Amino acid sequence: MIKVGIVGGTGYTGVELLRLLAAHPEVEIQAITSRSEKGLPVADMYPNLRGHLDLAFSEPDMAVLKKCDVVFFATPNGIAMTMARELVDAGVKVIDLAADFRIKDIKEWSKWYGMEHACPELVEKAVYGLPEVNRAEIKKAQLIANPGCYPTAVQLGFLPLIENGLIDTDNLIADAKSGVSGAGRTAAVATLQAESSENFKAYAVAGHRHLPEIKQGLALANNSEVGLTFVPHLVPMIRGIHATCYATLKDKKKNTAAQLQALYEKQYADEVFVDVLPAGSFPETRSVKGANHCRMAIHVPQEGNTVVILSVIDNLVKGAAGQAVQNMNIMFALNEDAGLTAIALVP
Amino acid sequence: MIKVGIVGGTGYTGVELLRLLAAHPEVEIQAITSRSEKGLPVADMYPNLRGHLDLAFSEPDMAVLKKCDVVFFATPNGIAMTMARELVDAGVKVIDLAADFRIKDIKEWSKWYGMEHACPELVEKAVYGLPEVNRAEIKKAQLIANPGCYPTAVQLGFLPLIENGLIDTDNLIADAKSGVSGAGRTAAVATLQAESSENFKAYAVAGHRHLPEIKQGLALANNSEVGLTFVPHLVPMIRGIHATCYATLKDKKKNTAAQLQALYEKQYADEVFVDVLPAGSFPETRSVKGANHCRMAIHVPQEGNTVVILSVIDNLVKGAAGQAVQNMNIMFALNEDAGLTAIALVP
Amino acid sequence: MIKVGIVGGTGYTGVELLRLLAAHPEVEIQAITSRSEKGLPVADMYPNLRGHLDLAFSEPDMAVLKKCDVVFFATPNGIAMTMARELVDAGVKVIDLAADFRIKDIKEWSKWYGMEHACPELVEKAVYGLPEVNRAEIKKAQLIANPGCYPTAVQLGFLPLIENGLIDTDNLIADAKSGVSGAGRTAAVATLQAESSENFKAYAVAGHRHLPEIKQGLALANNSEVGLTFVPHLVPMIRGIHATCYATLKDKKKNTAAQLQALYEKQYADEVFVDVLPAGSFPETRSVKGANHCRMAIHVPQEGNTVVILSVIDNLVKGAAGQAVQNMNIMFALNEDAGLTAIALVP
Amino acid sequence: MIKVGIVGGTGYTGVELLRLLAAHPEVEIQAITSRSEKGLPVADMYPNLRGHLDLAFSEPDMAVLKKCDVVFFATPNGIAMTMARELVDAGVKVIDLAADFRIKDIKEWSKWYGMEHACPELVEKAVYGLPEVNRAEIKKAQLIANPGCYPTAVQLGFLPLIENGLIDTDNLIADAKSGVSGAGRTAAVATLQAESSENFKAYAVAGHRHLPEIKQGLALANNSEVGLTFVPHLVPMIRGIHATCYATLKDKKKNTAAQLQALYEKQYADEVFVDVLPAGSFPETRSVKGANHCRMAIHVPQEGNTVVILSVIDNLVKGAAGQAVQNMNIMFALNEDAGLTAIALVP
Repeated sequence: MIKVGIVGGTGYTGVELLRLLAAHPEVEIQAITSRSEKGLPVADMYPNLRGHLDLAFSEPDMAVLKKCDVVFFATPNGIAMTMARELVDAGVKVIDLAADFRIKDIKEWSKWYGMEHACPELVEKAVYGLPEVNRAEIKKAQLIANPGCYPTAVQLGFLPLIENGLIDTDNLIADAKSGVSGAGRTAAVATLQAESSENFKAYAVAGHRHLPEIKQGLALANNSEVGLTFVPHLVPMIRGIHATCYATLKDKKKNTAAQLQALYEKQYADEVFVDVLPAGSFPETRSVKGANHCRMAIHVPQEGNTVVILSVIDNLVKGAAGQAVQNMNIMFALNEDAGLTAIALVP
Repeated sequence: MIKVGIVGGTGYTGVELLRLLAAHPEVEIQAITSRSEKGLPVADMYPNLRGHLDLAFSEPDMAVLKKCDVVFFATPNGIAMTMARELVDAGVKVIDLAADFRIKDIKEWSKWYGMEHACPELVEKAVYGLPEVNRAEIKKAQLIANPGCYPTAVQLGFLPLIENGLIDTDNLIADAKSGVSGAGRTAAVATLQAESSENFKAYAVAGHRHLPEIKQGLALANNSEVGLTFVPHLVPMIRGIHATCYATLKDKKKNTAAQLQALYEKQYADEVFVDVLPAGSFPETRSVKGANHCRMAIHVPQEGNTVVILSVIDNLVKGAAGQAVQNMNIMFALNEDAGLTAIALVP
Repeated sequence: MIKVGIVGGTGYTGVELLRLLAAHPEVEIQAITSRSEKGLPVADMYPNLRGHLDLAFSEPDMAVLKKCDVVFFATPNGIAMTMARELVDAGVKVIDLAADFRIKDIKEWSKWYGMEHACPELVEKAVYGLPEVNRAEIKKAQLIANPGCYPTAVQLGFLPLIENGLIDTDNLIADAKSGVSGAGRTAAVATLQAESSENFKAYAVAGHRHLPEIKQGLALANNSEVGLTFVPHLVPMIRGIHATCYATLKDKKKNTAAQLQALYEKQYADEVFVDVLPAGSFPETRSVKGANHCRMAIHVPQEGNTVVILSVIDNLVKGAAGQAVQNMNIMFALNEDAGLTAIALVP
Repeated sequence: MIKVGIVGGTGYTGVELLRLLAAHPEVEIQAITSRSEKGLPVADMYPNLRGHLDLAFSEPDMAVLKKCDVVFFATPNGIAMTMARELVDAGVKVIDLAADFRIKDIKEWSKWYGMEHACPELVEKAVYGLPEVNRAEIKKAQLIANPGCYPTAVQLGFLPLIENGLIDTDNLIADAKSGVSGAGRTAAVATLQAESSENFKAYAVAGHRHLPEIKQGLALANNSEVGLTFVPHLVPMIRGIHATCYATLKDKKKNTAAQLQALYEKQYADEVFVDVLPAGSFPETRSVKGANHCRMAIHVPQEGNTVVILSVIDNLVKGAAGQAVQNMNIMFALNEDAGLTAIALVP
């Protein structure tokens, strides 16, 4: 059994980790920390866990965490970078669900996250935990930067087009939509039900923190910078991300819808968590609610030169906790879907 | 034109007052106060008011308020009682949408609201602003205690039965359900969309502050105490209250469903804002969304001895701001529905 | 492996059965029938099943069904009664999720369901599948009448009080609320999102088909008829039932809240799927979303003589498909929670 | 008073017309027709109208309609074209809220709407009722083709850029999102609350009927064809459209965000129903819920060459019934906002 510690378990990615790990056949949860909720049984905050997890929040304790095989950070940005060094040196594997190790360019990171980086040398060592791109490195990694939710949906959508050099990468557009759990379990007026339900709006058009992360990933595939306009929107539902990705085909005659469909199916044929839907489909966010899948569809409207990729994930699963567990499975040579076989909840 | 001041306009009852008063043909809004938002144009906080109201929040200023004909308090409990005296003495009419003047028994009030009353002598003078009961007193009143949302729906439902002595008043049950706007525009985890939507639960079963208010009103009609079990629930929608009121008929043979239907229709025949639906109906909260109506239906299931009254209001309108405007209309001898003729928004 | 057939799998109880059975460790699904969707891969209708279930809808075929160990009917009322005889005679166990075998009084059944019963002799043999009451009979049963959703929540709430003779059983009240999936996956104006969301209403106050079912179950526990007022309401959410059950205590001095709490905890101590929450709790429907639990709390407001039981289930799980699987587990001597260990999806 | 007839009043655009016209100070509703609901009081179908409209649905009767000053068609596509001729010849003004007269190219219309056009000669005479573009023609028109919901939001968003020749019009993208009332009040599985709530998806990517309508309008402004990729999505809310419009600036140095902001403000300065928000804003659909406004914001992310216009309307008001009333007001020389002054319902 893999001994697991979770730092910062009171938010939505934390409770989702607990939901997945409490049911994981190869895992034993050793500690779940929260300074503010120290002593509170986890199931008192999250009654869905009653009968499934008999553990209380505890103060973060390095001695305890060092005895774990792997420690997940489900903390706000800026925490993992202050604790990872010691754990890594102790031989503990670390998976950070926040953004501390996602951006290789330290200056760029500081600009977007508004703080100095406390541990730049580990950024270099960290492996970006998108298994469909980095599986080999993840296997050997000791420190994983678990991708953001939007970046997961958008990158999986664009990558086959970019890797195969089929599109103009100067003017990509990602029109992305997220459920309100993406805003976290923090008391805030903007995501009160009376404010965010029965409403739809864009936000952070001037620049969202996931923009540099997506551009970094796409640039790697492109072997050069990409131009990306990324507009996130808030959807009045709890879970789910839908990315509508637009690109201009270099040669629409050589790249028909049918050919692109075949390309995507081939690219993701061996991926247990990426599902390319039949031609003409429209992926629904509910089809992945609570599940670790990314489902996508490829469209070329009116056989023009604009290709449209529709890509959906559950922001808390493939966009956060599920992908973190997937990374753990790879790191420990388990079946990649261990603990991740649940079927999405429909209706 | 009636000169109106609003103290504390940033919450939902405040913005609802603004929506109603900005469109009221006989009203001129003089000031809308908020210490925290001083200087902010109201329409910047509530974009629905753009183009309708060209006013900024201002610091509360007695000099300004005293020049008003009427001042509404849309403040948290405990504020109006510290300012009403001075306004009343200056001849300004006051309508408090909070609970400061609702409970005649000062000790009882202190017990439920957890503070000393700053102005007990005005409690006696205050008129409980339920027009269907107190219209004559409201006409002459200088200080109105605007009823709570649950109390409005529940009292209008029970009153005809009690006033006519038809039910056992020792064991009344009011199973009430409210949309989340009832919890106010305050950052709180419990009413985040990710928490309260797709969920249903009871709360405050041990005792809700509206319990003594309802009991006071029903006791007045009953000429003696009543026994009431009041269980509020949170509904995953923005607006609306549905009260399901249960009572035991003293004599079911003398009080058939048809007779009770006739009784209710007669009782409310002249009330512009109470609508007794045809026999067999089920009032929907959306049928009053944004409107000042209370719609109700009378049922006697299986012709037994339990009568069931279904009563719906919009908690922010007939349950708060609309009723306050109705009271103002009565106090200033306007048409009772002035500014309150909007049709509920369906769908 | 238990060979399972499902008749009528296109509705919500059908797809929920599929979700649970596809992940059940001891089950092999042999056939899922639907006349109207014959030939359609199940995953084309329910994309959440893609990759989990490689089966198409087929025409009902007795030869195939007779080779199953157990057949579930997730059909409209009136279908199972025409097919059960032949299956039962062939030694196949049958679990009917519809109402055909729930009411022992055939005349009463015909009155509420508006048809003649096609197989009255099996009604007598059928076991009412509420494991917390009938576990011993379920073990030996060949035909299970799986309880309705409201009846499950209401009976589990009232039974300890009735079995122990603590309440007046002439005037029980069950104020029940259900999410819209209870209305099924049938095109209907009333449950369009534009109609039923942002709305709350009661329905079927004059008499709901679950009324005789609840009364039958409570009467058995009471050894005599009970009087029950049952008012169902429609909640703007997908899943969940919340029953607020009211009864008058015979002797409030002998039955304090603490004593009732202890009574309930004792009664359900060995039940894996009934969770009595700590005193003072408010069960949330989301705490059982997707899970087979019934969570409940006991309240005695203001230490009066009215006891209030709050009881929540997921209408599609403990209220339908999950309870059916629980019954199957009991019938085949599996662990009672086999295939039912998933944690509720929160948020 | 203007005598008004409404043909086909049972759908959402019909009831919305009723809500607006019942409160319109210059209008007298003469008839509201529905074959299927003949004789049913309108308020029995839409209880929000109780007390506001004392009229029953009647069979369509040309004699009655010909006595009206104006007849609105809130019918499915294909009805108005069979009745308009006779009304127009009788001197009655006609406003069609369906699509019969929107597309000037009859062949194109037939291709998208799948039927022969019954009255092509009137298509030519019909005026496309987008007041911000065609006010002068509307004033003199006898037949108005009221614009579709998506086309209203998208055209108002793009037009200032196109009219001023600032963007590449070969590769426009409109990523549009609509609430479920856009699908109409027709029993359908796809828009059941249990299906469409807690879900987000694209649809009709291959080609939506509003695509040729939008392209026709933009081409007129452009004096030549435009290339447009239009992807509609379904949002889990009742009302509202949010169009996110992307275009490439021809010269980003000459067209900074500030200059574009000024351009939009100038273009719409005299428009009572178009509100250009301050720079940096994000229009919310709820800010126009129930109101006839289009609110929009202009963004140039990262000062690149992609301009992003965010444009919101209420699909049932500015996207249908409200715009129809606005057109009527113009045709009859009333104040353009007569009957359209209601403030959006927030929260």
